[in-house]
Amino acid sequence: MQLALYPQGETVLAQIILVTGGARSGKSSHAEARARALPGARLYIATARAEDAEMRARIARHVADRGEGWITIEAPIDLAGALDRCDGRGPRLVDCLTLWLSNLMLEGRDWEPEAEHLVAALARQKSPVILVSNEVGMGIVPDNALARAFRDAQGWLNQRVARVAHEVEFVVSGLPMRVK
Amino acid sequence: MQLALYPQGETVLAQIILVTGGARSGKSSHAEARARALPGARLYIATARAEDAEMRARIARHVADRGEGWITIEAPIDLAGALDRCDGRGPRLVDCLTLWLSNLMLEGRDWEPEAEHLVAALARQKSPVILVSNEVGMGIVPDNALARAFRDAQGWLNQRVARVAHEVEFVVSGLPMRVK
Amino acid sequence: MQLALYPQGETVLAQIILVTGGARSGKSSHAEARARALPGARLYIATARAEDAEMRARIARHVADRGEGWITIEAPIDLAGALDRCDGRGPRLVDCLTLWLSNLMLEGRDWEPEAEHLVAALARQKSPVILVSNEVGMGIVPDNALARAFRDAQGWLNQRVARVAHEVEFVVSGLPMRVK
Repeated sequence: MQLALYPQGETVLAQIILVTGGARSGKSSHAEARARALPGARLYIATARAEDAEMRARIARHVADRGEGWITIEAPIDLAGALDRCDGRGPRLVDCLTLWLSNLMLEGRDWEPEAEHLVAALARQKSPVILVSNEVGMGIVPDNALARAFRDAQGWLNQRVARVAHEVEFVVSGLPMRVK
Repeated sequence: MQLALYPQGETVLAQIILVTGGARSGKSSHAEARARALPGARLYIATARAEDAEMRARIARHVADRGEGWITIEAPIDLAGALDRCDGRGPRLVDCLTLWLSNLMLEGRDWEPEAEHLVAALARQKSPVILVSNEVGMGIVPDNALARAFRDAQGWLNQRVARVAHEVEFVVSGLPMRVK
Repeated sequence: MQLALYPQGETVLAQIILVTGGARSGKSSHAEARARALPGARLYIATARAEDAEMRARIARHVADRGEGWITIEAPIDLAGALDRCDGRGPRLVDCLTLWLSNLMLEGRDWEPEAEHLVAALARQKSPVILVSNEVGMGIVPDNALARAFRDAQGWLNQRVARVAHEVEFVVSGLPMRVK
């Protein structure tokens, strides 16, 4: 299945914001600031799996950076379901699409229908969603085929989500550049 | 020979547009939309060589994305000659400078005079040219010297073409950011 | 120690400009043009160490690109000290933070307090400082842990310096995009 990137006439109810950028570019902090500016309970939808020491340290640092006042929901695979289940209470921060995609591919799932489920779920949300994602396609072509497949999938996923987003921001050195 | 990046007083006849961005960022689709908005026959100048299954799949996907109404010209090496030969009929989409540069380097050619020939050819075109290129220098320094040489060459080529272009767009998540 | 990225009420005396971008994106040339537009002696603070043939060639090319009229100061490690010692004479071009960070990490130093010393030094400068840095976090996640640690450190350093900078520019294909 090839992802239909440019559907006509998609309508989206709630405010959808995509925050993209490189590793350690300040994407998450910026996305958190965007969420804090919105009314309602703040829900943090975590896609990370704490499977090794490095990832646990990374998660711990994100938790510390975020500070108090967040309700955390873990959704390493069923992101669309998680969004539906916690809709209507306040802004959701999804951090991040890159780990979610990585989880899908590591489990051998077909990421394209999952991406369509996510986009369909975004379109029916009543509360805002701020999604964090990574730019991974601006280095030299990776040697191994799996890494190439991942960066292609990530690029398509970012395009697909950007298409339905009301705002897209590209973060450089901690500072947002408005793309859409 | 060191590329003279900042010549004075270059004049260019036809509209030259450089569309750059990461892998699977939506550069080609955006560049195609730019070409479709211009009058005349639409010529697609392909620099790819269908040398393995992965590249053939990639080419097939680009062909499908592009849709009908394009005349395809293959120019893996002699890009300047191809531009001269098809000038005056309509907009040309060159997809992409990264594969062209890669072809030159794989054949052991000196890419710098070839880049100058390309820029000289761009300056004498009467019909518009839209060139797609990749950003490859925003990852970690590659381990091997050839990859480092390639990313240096790609960076210089992008600067050199951007210098004569009337417009430069940087595509993120399928959306163009105006650079020039 | 975790870097305090978002201190309140930092004040900075002289004009601080951060110029960031990919490898061979034209960052240095652009930063040099910014420095040349400012009055006073032009001081070039070089962080590179000429330790192998490739680096010597790279330094030689930068020297040739820069042209005459620069006073060069070598500061591979003590960047804050170098800035303090040459303050008050004219604009300083620091090229680049990436090599400086790399030098610190290769010597096994703790880069975070060094980054704080640098930021503190920037805040007390009376003459302008233009700092060049690299975007290294927009490729695929590197295989080795040291490369991942480096790209994380580089991302944080860029954020930290951007925070106190008056201007931040992101260079693509030789052309600056204003970030701040």
